[in-house]
Amino acid sequence: MLPTKVSIFEVGARDGLQNEAPVTTADKLTLIQQLADAGVKRIEAGSFVSPKWVPQMADSDAVFQQLKHQINRQSGVVYSALTPNLKGFELALAAGADEVAIFGAASESFSQKNINCSIDESIARFIPLIEQAKKHNIAVRGYVSCVLGCPYEGHINVSEVARVSEILYQMGCYEISLGDTIGVGTPTDARKMVEAVANVVPVDKLALHFHDTYGQALANILACLETGVSVFDTSVAGLGGCPYAKGASGNLATEDLVYMLHGMGIDTGIDLAKLALAGDTISRALGRTNGSKVANAIRA
Amino acid sequence: MLPTKVSIFEVGARDGLQNEAPVTTADKLTLIQQLADAGVKRIEAGSFVSPKWVPQMADSDAVFQQLKHQINRQSGVVYSALTPNLKGFELALAAGADEVAIFGAASESFSQKNINCSIDESIARFIPLIEQAKKHNIAVRGYVSCVLGCPYEGHINVSEVARVSEILYQMGCYEISLGDTIGVGTPTDARKMVEAVANVVPVDKLALHFHDTYGQALANILACLETGVSVFDTSVAGLGGCPYAKGASGNLATEDLVYMLHGMGIDTGIDLAKLALAGDTISRALGRTNGSKVANAIRA
Repeated sequence: MLPTKVSIFEVGARDGLQNEAPVTTADKLTLIQQLADAGVKRIEAGSFVSPKWVPQMADSDAVFQQLKHQINRQSGVVYSALTPNLKGFELALAAGADEVAIFGAASESFSQKNINCSIDESIARFIPLIEQAKKHNIAVRGYVSCVLGCPYEGHINVSEVARVSEILYQMGCYEISLGDTIGVGTPTDARKMVEAVANVVPVDKLALHFHDTYGQALANILACLETGVSVFDTSVAGLGGCPYAKGASGNLATEDLVYMLHGMGIDTGIDLAKLALAGDTISRALGRTNGSKVANAIRA
Repeated sequence: MLPTKVSIFEVGARDGLQNEAPVTTADKLTLIQQLADAGVKRIEAGSFVSPKWVPQMADSDAVFQQLKHQINRQSGVVYSALTPNLKGFELALAAGADEVAIFGAASESFSQKNINCSIDESIARFIPLIEQAKKHNIAVRGYVSCVLGCPYEGHINVSEVARVSEILYQMGCYEISLGDTIGVGTPTDARKMVEAVANVVPVDKLALHFHDTYGQALANILACLETGVSVFDTSVAGLGGCPYAKGASGNLATEDLVYMLHGMGIDTGIDLAKLALAGDTISRALGRTNGSKVANAIRA
């Protein structure tokens, strides 16, 4: 059974832009405003990480402060921030983020190489963050990376994806977003992985976050739609790239997913033409080709 | 039930290159040789149409004449030529094509605007060609265009796709290739269309030829795989474009399909690394970015 309605969690302004050349704060606010105008209800608008590590997100505080005053702030749009630790959470809270996101990896090597500690240690560090979030009534989303493969160890067991997902869910994350960080997955594996996680986390608490490095993301989502998952993280204009494969594609383009879903009679609440406008505008600001085939076809 | 084995009908040297800037005959022969080296067994190598209409295919005679002497000619590779009429067929025969392809549209407007006659008239004109082909024991493939939409009339009824497909099959085409010429289709419609055609033409005589204009081709193929179709027309490096949408994508990239199929445990007989080499080589000759995400990811 296909869902009749799907929720898009737009990550272009964070996961997309953090892998692009820097843009101005004004460009980001235009992007976020145009996304909201298009009907996108969940927007990851920045991250509170060290600007030393991710200079593209150095102005996230300014972005959220400005969003406080934007008109769409009042119309049911949720603006989310990625927060790697308690300090990041406090900054996000002060800046006015509606919700925050934390992350764990399904790959031990990835965790060690990226944050220099084990998967379990990395997750344990989020306990004080989640406590504070509860106190302030801020929802916490959990990302799990490398769910279909790891740049260091290759194959990842679905049992490990399920284990990490369950821990994050039990800790209090309201939704678990399963990330194919390097975009290597294919449909049969993607579906099996989701089915395994759905045994330990309710399927309506799952989201899929598939990068399009190997052009498989849309097919993988199609394969998973029948499991009952109905939340998908995508980037307008296919913003972003892959830090593990220079020159490769970033997240799945939101436009291409919305086009498919609408064609299948599945509602997203998004106006595709307005969405494509948002992607064209930020692509021009970046001086890059729009990575959405739908957007390029519409414009042509 | 998914197929265990899929056959790739590579159309990059014809459908792809006819929508690109011209390349030399030597470039085409390198492409075709590299495709054969990668294990591709069915290669559309050119078309015998007026060079006034398609200047990129003006050297098809030279291409086929040279192929006669190539080593892979003897290793079970079938080289096909598109032939719009009896004259084209005679040229293809003389040049040594192994098989030929003819075409009909599922859209009356498309037929009228493109070849200035009705669908039925256009198909009737192929009767003498098919007679000659039978006499010379040359297999004839049938293309049906606009199966999921038309640039002029939009929606196309699946009953019309089925009708035209059945006529071409009854006339003697050994395989019917269903083309989403403008790449507008989405998975549910694609599958319904194939199921409708499979009611009148045996499913093992069907092929799918999906352009990736809206980024849907791979998902559409995934949706159709369970109908039993196991032949897919694709272009290495996503060669080609869309004459109805300048700047839009061409055929689905062969590499991206092969990657998906192999990931799903479906055999293609193709060496993906060698295939990507063929795509990189022709992309360099064209001075264009490789349109295959898999190829770009592998290179990175």
